[in-house]
Amino acid sequence: MNNPVLVEVTRGTMVESRHRGAVAVMDAKGATVFAVGDVARPVFPRSAVKAFQALPLLESGAADRYGLTPAEIALAVASHSGEPAHAETAAGMLAKAGRDAACLECGAHWPMNDQAARDLAAAGRKPSALHNNCSGKHAGFVCLACHLGEDPAGYVKPEHRVQREVKAALEEMTGTALGDDVRGVDGCSIPTYAIPLTALATGFARFGAGEGMGPERRKAAEGICDAAAAHPWNVAGTGRLDTVLMEVFGRRVFMKTGAEGVYCAALPELGLGVALKADDGAKRAAECMFSAVLARTLPLGDAERARLDPHVVHTERNWNGIEVGTTRPTGALA
Amino acid sequence: MNNPVLVEVTRGTMVESRHRGAVAVMDAKGATVFAVGDVARPVFPRSAVKAFQALPLLESGAADRYGLTPAEIALAVASHSGEPAHAETAAGMLAKAGRDAACLECGAHWPMNDQAARDLAAAGRKPSALHNNCSGKHAGFVCLACHLGEDPAGYVKPEHRVQREVKAALEEMTGTALGDDVRGVDGCSIPTYAIPLTALATGFARFGAGEGMGPERRKAAEGICDAAAAHPWNVAGTGRLDTVLMEVFGRRVFMKTGAEGVYCAALPELGLGVALKADDGAKRAAECMFSAVLARTLPLGDAERARLDPHVVHTERNWNGIEVGTTRPTGALA
Repeated sequence: MNNPVLVEVTRGTMVESRHRGAVAVMDAKGATVFAVGDVARPVFPRSAVKAFQALPLLESGAADRYGLTPAEIALAVASHSGEPAHAETAAGMLAKAGRDAACLECGAHWPMNDQAARDLAAAGRKPSALHNNCSGKHAGFVCLACHLGEDPAGYVKPEHRVQREVKAALEEMTGTALGDDVRGVDGCSIPTYAIPLTALATGFARFGAGEGMGPERRKAAEGICDAAAAHPWNVAGTGRLDTVLMEVFGRRVFMKTGAEGVYCAALPELGLGVALKADDGAKRAAECMFSAVLARTLPLGDAERARLDPHVVHTERNWNGIEVGTTRPTGALA
Repeated sequence: MNNPVLVEVTRGTMVESRHRGAVAVMDAKGATVFAVGDVARPVFPRSAVKAFQALPLLESGAADRYGLTPAEIALAVASHSGEPAHAETAAGMLAKAGRDAACLECGAHWPMNDQAARDLAAAGRKPSALHNNCSGKHAGFVCLACHLGEDPAGYVKPEHRVQREVKAALEEMTGTALGDDVRGVDGCSIPTYAIPLTALATGFARFGAGEGMGPERRKAAEGICDAAAAHPWNVAGTGRLDTVLMEVFGRRVFMKTGAEGVYCAALPELGLGVALKADDGAKRAAECMFSAVLARTLPLGDAERARLDPHVVHTERNWNGIEVGTTRPTGALA
């Protein structure tokens, strides 16, 4: 199936580039509310399911035992920009479990935030695993391992207890059996499993509504949604779409980007979940698609619409600030 | 017309992302040697036509008058990485015309090369217009304006003599009338005109072979190809595909990337030109497509093939250096 063009990038009066993709908006019972493109094809959700991956951290009692704060739980579901407070928060989580950055198995990379990267360089420093955008999630994994009495070493491997717990949560939330045939290795070295957009969206509808799960999981899901709403900067960073829109919508929207053009989200007041992927993996396309889906799905006041609209139709400017075109959704998302 | 999927990005055993596009390989007479996708649709070539945009600099006598070296001419057709020697070379070009960076109208941005950006920050400096990837082209425009006795101010505007000369060269090389209806503003603020891939590829075939042009233009085209072959680092920068492959192939391949997933190239020994665009504008797709086209078009020795192949099928590694997948061409490019 050919997915339709969902996003156009214009220059002058012409369309310069085109992005295809698929979107599923589902309710918690698995009914389709809106779908475009091939929503049955399994896709790697990558970091878009960090909220599901963090459920065992809360359900197991590890988060309570180590006294993880909402700010730290928000970082545990983050793809953060590596700004100083992100790295410090991850270090604090590890310290609460009596560990440090030497435990992290995500690898190091320069902060995603360019200014943070340049500041680090200007200070004569190099990035550590704490600056990896996944360091909060990994710090959560280390806390979980310690709480379970497991050696954290090797916690990124599919056979480690931590990843077995994480996989079980993913399977339960999405109602999907995840075999080795759909397993890949993620950027931060943990397993990632390909899952249909319909199953991801249904899982996020359940996650946001607390439906189809026991009280411990419901409490964990609520804790994650509350934490992200209270600390949206921790979930992404300065200027990032997830941060900007969760600052606008608070508890009404839990949203999470994933590498290669993925978004997953819960809209608790509507009992709906969203999952989408740009075929080509482009971040700009996924951001436009997600903003357009929010605009067509969520009841909006004038002030909210005014803050959302610039992300639906995004003005592109060049190095001199001259408007050169737009990134905009096609009619298929209207 | 739906362009076919030309590049797949795999993770584990699955295809994670897909890039569509179109490719034209033409001879200097305008005959199609290889075509896939909609090669008649006008696309913005962006920086991929910098070689055509630099023809007036040489033909007018400006390059000779100011004593521009091959290294400087290579920078005039570059999208460089903003490494120190790139910025210094651009400054040197301006100085030869008695001007400086204050004349540049391309805007400033941090060097495309991350290490160069961090080094600049570490030195407590900010980027200038000399670090803009187009500063060499713009320095050439300033030289041209000065040589023509024109005030360089406003040289980025369509009505300035410099841009009229540049547009005429583009029209002549591609055999295409370029009206305001296909004009956009480029990242560096000069006009960019949408042109069919077939016309671009035919133009580059002529450019490489010196066919269909007078002696002055032929000499200018040869001078540009010679300069790029002698100074491939100046045309792009450390680790960049254009630099890496022109280091391998020397005078056999003149290649130039353009923003939003474009490549144009001349293969002089075969009398052929190449033009391609990834629909979604992805650099990784355009690089894979171009490498695959080279692999199928150019006669290769074993050593050359060994250096080209890793760019045709590119191994993707994560932050820990673990192989997670590949970026590879589909059968349509085989």
